Amino acid sequence: MDRYLLISSDCHAGPLPDQARGYVSPAYRDAFDTWNADVEGKERRRAEHTGAAIYGDEAVADFDIDVTDQGSQMVGAWDSKQRLDEMDGDGVVAEVIYPGASLETITPFDVGLMTYQYEQAPEIWFEGCRAYNRWLSDFCAEVPGRRAGVGLITIDDIDATVSEIRWLRENGVTGGIVLPVSTNGHPYYNHPRYEPLWAICEDLDLPIHAHVGWTPNYGDYKGSLGIFLSEITWWARRPLNFLIWSGVFERHPKLRFVMTEMGATWVVPELAELDKKYEMPMFRHMRRELPRPPSEYFAQNCYMGAAFMAGDVVKMRHQIGVDKLMWGSDYPHIEGTWPHTAEKLAEAFAGVAQNECRKMLGGNAAEVYGFDLDQLSKYADQMGPAADRIGA
Amino acid sequence: MDRYLLISSDCHAGPLPDQARGYVSPAYRDAFDTWNADVEGKERRRAEHTGAAIYGDEAVADFDIDVTDQGSQMVGAWDSKQRLDEMDGDGVVAEVIYPGASLETITPFDVGLMTYQYEQAPEIWFEGCRAYNRWLSDFCAEVPGRRAGVGLITIDDIDATVSEIRWLRENGVTGGIVLPVSTNGHPYYNHPRYEPLWAICEDLDLPIHAHVGWTPNYGDYKGSLGIFLSEITWWARRPLNFLIWSGVFERHPKLRFVMTEMGATWVVPELAELDKKYEMPMFRHMRRELPRPPSEYFAQNCYMGAAFMAGDVVKMRHQIGVDKLMWGSDYPHIEGTWPHTAEKLAEAFAGVAQNECRKMLGGNAAEVYGFDLDQLSKYADQMGPAADRIGA
Repeated sequence: MDRYLLISSDCHAGPLPDQARGYVSPAYRDAFDTWNADVEGKERRRAEHTGAAIYGDEAVADFDIDVTDQGSQMVGAWDSKQRLDEMDGDGVVAEVIYPGASLETITPFDVGLMTYQYEQAPEIWFEGCRAYNRWLSDFCAEVPGRRAGVGLITIDDIDATVSEIRWLRENGVTGGIVLPVSTNGHPYYNHPRYEPLWAICEDLDLPIHAHVGWTPNYGDYKGSLGIFLSEITWWARRPLNFLIWSGVFERHPKLRFVMTEMGATWVVPELAELDKKYEMPMFRHMRRELPRPPSEYFAQNCYMGAAFMAGDVVKMRHQIGVDKLMWGSDYPHIEGTWPHTAEKLAEAFAGVAQNECRKMLGGNAAEVYGFDLDQLSKYADQMGPAADRIGA
Repeated sequence: MDRYLLISSDCHAGPLPDQARGYVSPAYRDAFDTWNADVEGKERRRAEHTGAAIYGDEAVADFDIDVTDQGSQMVGAWDSKQRLDEMDGDGVVAEVIYPGASLETITPFDVGLMTYQYEQAPEIWFEGCRAYNRWLSDFCAEVPGRRAGVGLITIDDIDATVSEIRWLRENGVTGGIVLPVSTNGHPYYNHPRYEPLWAICEDLDLPIHAHVGWTPNYGDYKGSLGIFLSEITWWARRPLNFLIWSGVFERHPKLRFVMTEMGATWVVPELAELDKKYEMPMFRHMRRELPRPPSEYFAQNCYMGAAFMAGDVVKMRHQIGVDKLMWGSDYPHIEGTWPHTAEKLAEAFAGVAQNECRKMLGGNAAEVYGFDLDQLSKYADQMGPAADRIGA
């Protein structure tokens, strides 16, 4: 039987607090215990995870889905064996792992997609990243070749961060890194201070990710929900602008930049707009350092971690680029496609040519994250969804 | 002969340094002299005014227009008599005045559209505003009823700012205020601390303006020009979001908010997007404090200072709202329509119904800024462009 090789480019996992503690350096364990015992922090994490921080408790109680629901996949958020069984059962042979998995799991010191959302010593943010990365290394090693963990970094001390990125590569965390959307008061990403970061990620073939999540703290004031919803993807989209215009992709043609869970259709009008600016007469003198229009750098370096790809994204796949789009299940999140991935894919990709489905459902992710297709094919031949069920 | 009553909703004026000095409080004159003598500051102002700060000297030398050109209107930037003669000759009977007029003129301590672009004591920023406002009051008084000056404020000490706004109204500065695009590290505009600002402007019937200009300082690094061009209107557009969602327009139905020189076509898809978010189920609980969708508040409170209105803006006038759009000449800027305003208008408004032209060319501005149409009609009857030359 002909089957799809399914790779989820957007999954989430994390340790339970007790598991995490052992990964924190001894020098920071007291700080970890204080952080972990802090009632206010726990409430903040609960509110963020359930959406109450943004939507309010009253609205969350009214949601169609209950994000506090402790289904079996909430065990899979941290239990390697359960997770593997559930992914196998759902036909997914490999995954890319981000933090922010469930209400029970944590990232030490609140690092992750919201890094720098409040004030805390840079060394604490950094230690949180390192502890999570150490856990992630072990978690990925439990299933060799099938888990690409995305490591966490801070950008306060670039030399230390470069060392940490080397550590990630040497310790089997092959998914690359999440670029913080906030730079904690440091200049943004056109500054030369970040050059070692781009260089090491290109050298070690580790993709850089922007993942939606961070916004300024709008406070507990009227309008915060609307403002949050109106601005959140813009903040996550900013790094693309900075990397393109400052020539990062010109200097690092092999660097891969992935934008995850921030939609994908916006990139078409955005690139048209950037190309139009590039053609303005005042740009003549800039072409020496940026010899090609922005859309060409997108084509060369960038990818969209487009999650479910329902609706408009699949329709606009040719404009965005069939080679640019990567599906994701969002496991173990309750709004994700597990355990009905095959059915959801049949809906979302109805009418799409199978050779295109193969790229968006796994082929592109295999290339970006360096998965071994020979190894994964063996699993796909057993568990992948039947090819005649998805696409045309 | 039937003529148009022409009001420019976007002009610029400012004092020469020697004129400005007398308007600075004695306690701050030494600081002013130090500021005015600072070679680095002078170079920064030159670079900002010519565009060299953004485009680079080499590119600026290549521009089609020379923004350092000292044409006669550069005298009109600060000389009341010359300005009036030139506006009369161009058929413009009244104007709305912003800072940032020319290379020779200044705003004390660099206040204006770029307020808070670098670090300086709040009291210095505030005194810069007050000195400019005092000059503006005198400048407007020279031609009663024909100049609506837009005052400058800071937002560090809201009580002091409210007093300054009262001073503006009492001293004939009838154009309202420019809202700083940067809040200097204070919370943004959904915070209740700004409530007295909205209240006093509604009470005194003074419009609030967002004018394009401020961005973060991207530094003298690669890509800054492209990044600047890609982000500049977004920063100026942010306040709209905050004012709508936090219910400022619900609580202050008579407050007028004008967005100037940031294009106008973007507002159509933007409002559609905001309305879509408003319809999301999670918003049910928010409707108590925001009972109507965002586009209705735009219709009730907002206006676009759309400058030349060439091209797309005129085409999209019905979607944006014919009552929402205000033309501006940008006098004395070299890229403005002076001294060929009638011809430029004939081009830009070709085929547009005359009753629509009348609104966009002066009627809307008269209403927003409270100009006395009886008084202005006398001037328009003498100097306004012939009605059969513009529109259909």
